[in-house]
Amino acid sequence: MHRFALKIEYDGRPFAGWQAQADQPSVQEAVERALARLDRGFAEGARISAAGRTDAGVHATSQIAHADLQRDWDPFRLREALNFHLKPAPIAILDTARTDADFHARFSAVERRYVFRLIARRAPLTHLRGLAWQVQNSLDLDAMRQAAAHLVGHHDFTTFRSSICQAKSPVKTLDEIAIDRLEQPHGHEYRFHLRARSFLHNQVRSIVGTLERVGAGAWPSGRVGDALAARDRAACGPVCPPYGLYLSGVRYPDDPFAAAGHP
Amino acid sequence: MHRFALKIEYDGRPFAGWQAQADQPSVQEAVERALARLDRGFAEGARISAAGRTDAGVHATSQIAHADLQRDWDPFRLREALNFHLKPAPIAILDTARTDADFHARFSAVERRYVFRLIARRAPLTHLRGLAWQVQNSLDLDAMRQAAAHLVGHHDFTTFRSSICQAKSPVKTLDEIAIDRLEQPHGHEYRFHLRARSFLHNQVRSIVGTLERVGAGAWPSGRVGDALAARDRAACGPVCPPYGLYLSGVRYPDDPFAAAGHP
Repeated sequence: MHRFALKIEYDGRPFAGWQAQADQPSVQEAVERALARLDRGFAEGARISAAGRTDAGVHATSQIAHADLQRDWDPFRLREALNFHLKPAPIAILDTARTDADFHARFSAVERRYVFRLIARRAPLTHLRGLAWQVQNSLDLDAMRQAAAHLVGHHDFTTFRSSICQAKSPVKTLDEIAIDRLEQPHGHEYRFHLRARSFLHNQVRSIVGTLERVGAGAWPSGRVGDALAARDRAACGPVCPPYGLYLSGVRYPDDPFAAAGHP
Repeated sequence: MHRFALKIEYDGRPFAGWQAQADQPSVQEAVERALARLDRGFAEGARISAAGRTDAGVHATSQIAHADLQRDWDPFRLREALNFHLKPAPIAILDTARTDADFHARFSAVERRYVFRLIARRAPLTHLRGLAWQVQNSLDLDAMRQAAAHLVGHHDFTTFRSSICQAKSPVKTLDEIAIDRLEQPHGHEYRFHLRARSFLHNQVRSIVGTLERVGAGAWPSGRVGDALAARDRAACGPVCPPYGLYLSGVRYPDDPFAAAGHP
């Protein structure tokens, strides 16, 4: 068997999420169906594993998965063939690389990065509908940054974790929350950049939804630290919608794509 | 009657263009239908006029139209009411302003600006599908800029004009073509910024399609000057698809929105 890493971009709008589910379209199933056109193992039910199992409506600009193929494909040709068979799904294989047999897209990952796009303006979104979360009024950037500082570090994130989260422990290290504001002609875009070895289920959306309350002036920024300390789901702010969220990067001890450099 | 200017953003994908047509969805008709919910004149068939009659699939980030209403609306409330009635169409009224009775969205305009988004990368587009034109290989930015310089100024643009163009004269002054290149993780985006008092039908798409041939190395940059001098539609390069094109600004001697300053 020959193991390949796949770097995948997708528009989450038409999918019930990454993970294959009965009777629901998923990104995983779409990629596996394309692989089944090329490889007997996948035609017979082989599966792929991914670094992040994104929810329904969540996007990726750099999801990583691995697949074991029976033939030793040229990585460039594999990418082209998969993109051909993925049409017309809004999924693109950005890069492919041969990896060692012990590379695992999920278990070898040492860092995940997410970006959340939040647009504050009165008028409804047009081109970005389903690609960003919209609120009506501008937000206080400094207050959100102050509140976010309470969350960075090694903490019990029970407050910011979905009740159906399956992680063994709610204790995680959140390495960074950076918030940028981009000027737009009729409003502002706020981009939240979160980085950690791994995240709990709904952790990013719980954090961004809570920080938005701070930015809107509904929460004092210190309340975010209190909510964290409470270790109580009920202390969380509203979980924000999925469609502003993008899995934007996954890091491994050795970047499987470092040597590739395909056009 | 009370005349109002409307600043309109729209996603061109679901529309057969700006202009109302029988049995085809148009942006104009959608806006007029929303106005008809607020104003008896529009309920009885009044029409709006716009600065640019964009083709099917073409977008706008700043189309300007004017409407004559029977009631003197507060501009802010008019905007909110129109956006409410426009749902779920991907059309947003960004701004509204009272104008003098002699303001005409089309005939008072002294400058139009268009942006064309061209993305060069191997992998198919996902989030930007229908919002940019894609080519497979990177383009020579300097060659495209050199070629574009032949087109700036006062010229007979017969070569870069659709055969169905209804303008009286093919002579226009093209004030600017600026081309930016934005780095993307797996390719490049080229943004073409064109500015003129007015444009011929298909002029921007004819120019960008021709410049792409230069960027790809298929045309020497000097051939663009020869094509212009030929004043012959057959000398034009391929007209590029509509979905990378955005009407991005319209200028008037007095900006009708200058005093508005709504949130």
